[in-house]
Amino acid sequence: MKKLKRSARLVDMTYFLLQHPHEIVSLTRFSERYQAAKSSISEDLVIIKEMFEDEGYGALLTIPGASGGVKYMPKMNKSEAETLVDQLVIDLNKQERILPGGYLYMMDLLGNPKLMHEVGRLFASVLHNKQIDAVMTVATKGIPLAYAVGQHLGVPVSIVRRDHRITEGSMVSINYASGSSDRIQTMTLARRSLAPGAKVFIVDDFMKAGGTLKGMVDLLEEFDADLVGIGVLVEAAEVNERLVDDYISLTKLTDVNVREKRIDVSEGNVFEKY
Amino acid sequence: MKKLKRSARLVDMTYFLLQHPHEIVSLTRFSERYQAAKSSISEDLVIIKEMFEDEGYGALLTIPGASGGVKYMPKMNKSEAETLVDQLVIDLNKQERILPGGYLYMMDLLGNPKLMHEVGRLFASVLHNKQIDAVMTVATKGIPLAYAVGQHLGVPVSIVRRDHRITEGSMVSINYASGSSDRIQTMTLARRSLAPGAKVFIVDDFMKAGGTLKGMVDLLEEFDADLVGIGVLVEAAEVNERLVDDYISLTKLTDVNVREKRIDVSEGNVFEKY
Repeated sequence: MKKLKRSARLVDMTYFLLQHPHEIVSLTRFSERYQAAKSSISEDLVIIKEMFEDEGYGALLTIPGASGGVKYMPKMNKSEAETLVDQLVIDLNKQERILPGGYLYMMDLLGNPKLMHEVGRLFASVLHNKQIDAVMTVATKGIPLAYAVGQHLGVPVSIVRRDHRITEGSMVSINYASGSSDRIQTMTLARRSLAPGAKVFIVDDFMKAGGTLKGMVDLLEEFDADLVGIGVLVEAAEVNERLVDDYISLTKLTDVNVREKRIDVSEGNVFEKY
Repeated sequence: MKKLKRSARLVDMTYFLLQHPHEIVSLTRFSERYQAAKSSISEDLVIIKEMFEDEGYGALLTIPGASGGVKYMPKMNKSEAETLVDQLVIDLNKQERILPGGYLYMMDLLGNPKLMHEVGRLFASVLHNKQIDAVMTVATKGIPLAYAVGQHLGVPVSIVRRDHRITEGSMVSINYASGSSDRIQTMTLARRSLAPGAKVFIVDDFMKAGGTLKGMVDLLEEFDADLVGIGVLVEAAEVNERLVDDYISLTKLTDVNVREKRIDVSEGNVFEKY
């Protein structure tokens, strides 16, 4: 790369850091790439750090020592997070979402990569001080959210499946009780798709009693993996007995009235600890 | 926002443009945000444009006129794309991927959000001069790729499903012949998850005879939607009769020998038109 002015260097460094969240990037790497003194690079990083932190894009951590460098951790400041959740609440309350049986149509939200990306950044922000090695979800609707969170945390995604048409080698299956119907179902994860001992964040689009999430928690045990937390886009509020205790919800569905075409969605518990 | 120096402004503009691919951003927006003259903003954009284009991150188009501004289109230059495909070829040739029946384990690649993001940028680069309104795929394994492409193109994702446990309102189903087994199967897409008249790019992780892809092409007709193109991560080369003609493949699987634990994967057709 040709020698750059500071202005061009800042554009390139910003681009690079955004593509490599949660990775330690050594000052030497930048210094060699731009043929610039480490002192100049440090000054550049101060400018980026201030801008990112002022605007709530994330934190730029300095890691001292021989293997040190900087690490970009995507975050979302509270006011931006509130705006995002407010918008989700407005969108979810639209009566045209109501489907027969009181289900809500959500694929317009889940099918929007930019929205999912922002929701992923919100979850990454809540989780910024946790060590997480993988994100787990269950096919199909949890997948967009899981990738968005995984991308911001810089970790892989494990997809649990409910079908059996799987060609992924040795599999681990468990039975679980779907909380809403009490029906016994099976979920399956490829043995090699989650490392033993991994610290795992579980996500899904919707939680009612939490039977599916509880199934995934049980599945973690089969992999000697540890649960770090659970995140959902929507929790259903009126549930007799919740099968998981600790979770982060962005929104809460209190009521769906099919006859009167009324939905009641409000903010979830996410800001209790933000 | 407080008044910024050019250096800080460049960091913020780079961040903003990366979060808003394929969107027209007016100079007025930037000018108001930074309390800076449009002439200064234009100079900033020249710096970003040069850097992005020199490094092959993408193009910054200037749209003239009253509703004009700039538009960031993510791209990948050819040498970076070749490095990515070379790496995929090396990874796919690893013999530990071979599963009983000659299938290949690919979830380590599909489960890597950063890799999928780069693959998405490559496809967006190939497609940069096409008008695309939506990306379509079939659950489950095509989903990560579809989101990565959709994110770079700034368009929504439609997920076709093969199961029937769906609560998404009115659905459109078609039958299709899975090329490999000649078995008649059903695929389904929610009526409201694809707009009539949409121009659609279809992606999947793997293509053998192309029966599933052909099914999705047929499904487009039911939505009065138009096919723009097809992209796959891996095509299987040894096929008697291919059911789709025109597709972009990143890699090509010529042979899997379960007994000798040998895989033969090489570059796909992607560079024929790059």
